[in-house]
Amino acid sequence: MSTPSGPGLPAKSGHILAIDAMGGDHGPAEVIAGVRLALRNHSSGIRILLVGDKAALDRHIAAEGLSSDDRVEVFHASEVIGMDEKPIAALKHKKDSSMVRAIELVKDGRADAVLSLGNTGALMAGGTLRLRPMEGVSRPALATVIPSRGHQFVLIDAGANPDADPIHLLHNALLGKEYARCALNIKNPRVGLLTIGTEEGKGSEKILEAHALLKGANGLFNYCGPVEGFQLFRNEVDVVVCDGFTGNILLKTLESCFDMLKDFLKEELMENPVRIAGAFLSKGAYNAVKKELNPESLGGAPLLGLNRLVIKAHGSSKRGHVAGAIRVAGEALQHEITSAIRADLDKLASAAGNPN
Amino acid sequence: MSTPSGPGLPAKSGHILAIDAMGGDHGPAEVIAGVRLALRNHSSGIRILLVGDKAALDRHIAAEGLSSDDRVEVFHASEVIGMDEKPIAALKHKKDSSMVRAIELVKDGRADAVLSLGNTGALMAGGTLRLRPMEGVSRPALATVIPSRGHQFVLIDAGANPDADPIHLLHNALLGKEYARCALNIKNPRVGLLTIGTEEGKGSEKILEAHALLKGANGLFNYCGPVEGFQLFRNEVDVVVCDGFTGNILLKTLESCFDMLKDFLKEELMENPVRIAGAFLSKGAYNAVKKELNPESLGGAPLLGLNRLVIKAHGSSKRGHVAGAIRVAGEALQHEITSAIRADLDKLASAAGNPN
Repeated sequence: MSTPSGPGLPAKSGHILAIDAMGGDHGPAEVIAGVRLALRNHSSGIRILLVGDKAALDRHIAAEGLSSDDRVEVFHASEVIGMDEKPIAALKHKKDSSMVRAIELVKDGRADAVLSLGNTGALMAGGTLRLRPMEGVSRPALATVIPSRGHQFVLIDAGANPDADPIHLLHNALLGKEYARCALNIKNPRVGLLTIGTEEGKGSEKILEAHALLKGANGLFNYCGPVEGFQLFRNEVDVVVCDGFTGNILLKTLESCFDMLKDFLKEELMENPVRIAGAFLSKGAYNAVKKELNPESLGGAPLLGLNRLVIKAHGSSKRGHVAGAIRVAGEALQHEITSAIRADLDKLASAAGNPN
Repeated sequence: MSTPSGPGLPAKSGHILAIDAMGGDHGPAEVIAGVRLALRNHSSGIRILLVGDKAALDRHIAAEGLSSDDRVEVFHASEVIGMDEKPIAALKHKKDSSMVRAIELVKDGRADAVLSLGNTGALMAGGTLRLRPMEGVSRPALATVIPSRGHQFVLIDAGANPDADPIHLLHNALLGKEYARCALNIKNPRVGLLTIGTEEGKGSEKILEAHALLKGANGLFNYCGPVEGFQLFRNEVDVVVCDGFTGNILLKTLESCFDMLKDFLKEELMENPVRIAGAFLSKGAYNAVKKELNPESLGGAPLLGLNRLVIKAHGSSKRGHVAGAIRVAGEALQHEITSAIRADLDKLASAAGNPN
């Protein structure tokens, strides 16, 4: 482990990811265990700047055997923003919090991206206020990968911008396309606009306007038209575009539905010795389903459309998910996702200027 | 079986349900098998008026041993609206279709409610145009029951009104409360407003306005405040109020997610002899989960807020679901759901007139 050498960190090779190490339900120990996993398994050359209480972090770094790993550094911050604090008030009053400091390190160019398991609202507000939306994007969007069988898709927006206008949905399509390229490694992702009834003339007014905009942006992404809810788990699209209200409700309902099903089946399987024996014999089937539908490799959800990359991981993330989020961050940085998005926006702007 | 005695059907006791017997993926045979089940299992005293091709219907009625059952009658209609036809055009050009005739029988007072497994858009448009929204309700809403573990909840609106204004969400709360009373037999259903982030000040602008309206209508229903997606499967509310866009996407995504999970687990369980043996031993667990999460007893989704009751059943409904839809219709008629809704609307109007 090296310590940061003052205001300008040494410009070593590889991207630097600032991690708000104090957020998350399981504390910094789990975050740092995730860092160790990530550094062991992935070769993106990423370097980690852990932000938080230095004494605590040093202890966990030592426990994970990372003290002599010069890819890991610590930046001290004395405060922590709690999960239930009001975002704006917390950002204002906790200037020396691990989250605020991590965002500032990115703003100051001392890190390339920020990852936090902490308060979602604070991260979104802090990221947006300090790192600013890119020219041409008025509202950032939260992208998340939803696993299905033999297939995964990007849902964008998962909650950043509930009152999205049609133009925001067009931006979400661009952002989602670039994210599917990085996170799912798909060259030309199929983009669908989430709606109800795919016949012409159905859906809300906003969706009809958005559909026209997405159709008009043909060439910038592979637009497959409107998609309905029943198509999401059928491998028909790679990017599902929606407003943050619909996306957040969908994501949280699906998570809660999965949990209910898992617990329900588990308890039924444990109800008597015969069922328990049966469950033991067919254990491989459950593990296969669980592994595919809850992949640790996709631990993070980026807030896209800002000048720098901000990644949110679930508060309940375990080390495997933290490592997954670090992997996603590393790949997005390697793919230079923000430059790719900026290039798309430039093309969009020039197409609007020259309608032919 | 009795045949209708001309323009005025005999005013026997019990409510009359007109069934568009030609809609549905499995044809009239399955519908009539469902009628037989319903008449055998339920004692609501409901009478059935089957609408469609008389020759075909008579044949299936005979096959089900219902020819001498005077609770079953037939009304001839020569045409059928297809599942993929454009609703308005179909209603206009197929005046002698089973769906149009069934709706007209209700309009003319010769039946009390209509049930169809056919084209959803045509049923919603036809019902709305011919049976008209109630005074005080500008847009009807589709209510559906979603099963969870040891609990079920009403989702309203499941797709009738995608561009809902806050006042429509208030009406949905009233309609959903009355439906939960009939379909789930809950005296004072807990009503929640579906949103993202339940802290004050979060959610879309529309939701914040709707929240104020629902809070203001206190006393008309048991309003529990905003609910998030993750609360839906946790038995926290009995009625989930949302716009038809969000509701339809949620419903269809959940259905498709269930199907994916079921197929995935099934195939994994069948992958090798050991897993097959295990699955056999723990069969009881799967059956318990399946029975609770796919109850045939809830086959129908009513379009509420019209002067008469219109019920939609899934096109893929099998006889058990048809019987469930008939049961729901019977209970809603016995509970006089439309009168109850009208009384609520009157209270709402007088409360608006006398703000103290």
